[in-house]
Amino acid sequence: MKKNRTLMNDLPEPVPEAMKAAYDEALTAGARGEIPVGAAIYDPEAERIVARSGNRSVELNDPGAHAEMLAIRAACAALGASRLPGLDLYVTLEPCTMCAAAISFARLRRLYFGAFDEKGGGVCHGARFYEQPTCHHAPEVYGGIDRSACAELLQQFFAGRRGGA
Amino acid sequence: MKKNRTLMNDLPEPVPEAMKAAYDEALTAGARGEIPVGAAIYDPEAERIVARSGNRSVELNDPGAHAEMLAIRAACAALGASRLPGLDLYVTLEPCTMCAAAISFARLRRLYFGAFDEKGGGVCHGARFYEQPTCHHAPEVYGGIDRSACAELLQQFFAGRRGGA
Repeated sequence: MKKNRTLMNDLPEPVPEAMKAAYDEALTAGARGEIPVGAAIYDPEAERIVARSGNRSVELNDPGAHAEMLAIRAACAALGASRLPGLDLYVTLEPCTMCAAAISFARLRRLYFGAFDEKGGGVCHGARFYEQPTCHHAPEVYGGIDRSACAELLQQFFAGRRGGA
Repeated sequence: MKKNRTLMNDLPEPVPEAMKAAYDEALTAGARGEIPVGAAIYDPEAERIVARSGNRSVELNDPGAHAEMLAIRAACAALGASRLPGLDLYVTLEPCTMCAAAISFARLRRLYFGAFDEKGGGVCHGARFYEQPTCHHAPEVYGGIDRSACAELLQQFFAGRRGGA
């Protein structure tokens, strides 16, 4: 990973409850045969999780049904709002470019993610959307939280696939 | 607009039916109070429009409910598939970064768009997603089809907003 301007340096310690919820969503997504990625949206003022979701691309026949997109949609529906300022998104994997942009559109305050995604990430890799002049709101970004556990879920999933398990 | 590697040079002539359908969707989206952008997904082999949608971000309280995202979701649902190889997407405005990535994930064959979007586009501007190493499928891109009419819709909409109309 190239050094970049996007990441904040201080990771929250211990792992926040919302990250654990995202991890649980990733686990259950994997059990459903989905790529195991999970997300949760947290209201730091009310100290509660507003919405959570795992990846449902296969189930919904929707290439856009990533965990972050579904969590954003669920949070907007729950709050009757099309923007989520002041709220934070936790996700087990660095968001792809699509989700990075959706997080920006939703005006989320902070993005906390687990594993880095060199091949498909759009935050610290590739498009680095938050550093683009076409990005009109960038969340604060904290990456690498509980990254080993989050990455291991994905590695196990893909190893199982290759082995035909 | 910087010269870029993404665009094909030959625009279809006359304006294809699917682009007219996208324009109609943009018109009706504007009438609903949405930013007037419309999209249609076309099957060139069967010579038919598979799905069409206008922007519904306000109606659905969903910052991700752009015309392209809804058209992709509708086409996937109609065909019972999570990928749309061989199909083409027509949209009145250069897709944003979120939609550019979703078009890639859906494996669409071609992207035809109308007006260029310097401020928010992710195809010929900003992230230029299809030129990134993290993009694993790029459609052929034709931009600027019926661009004056498509841009005028947007200009009228925003002029009306500024005037309080």
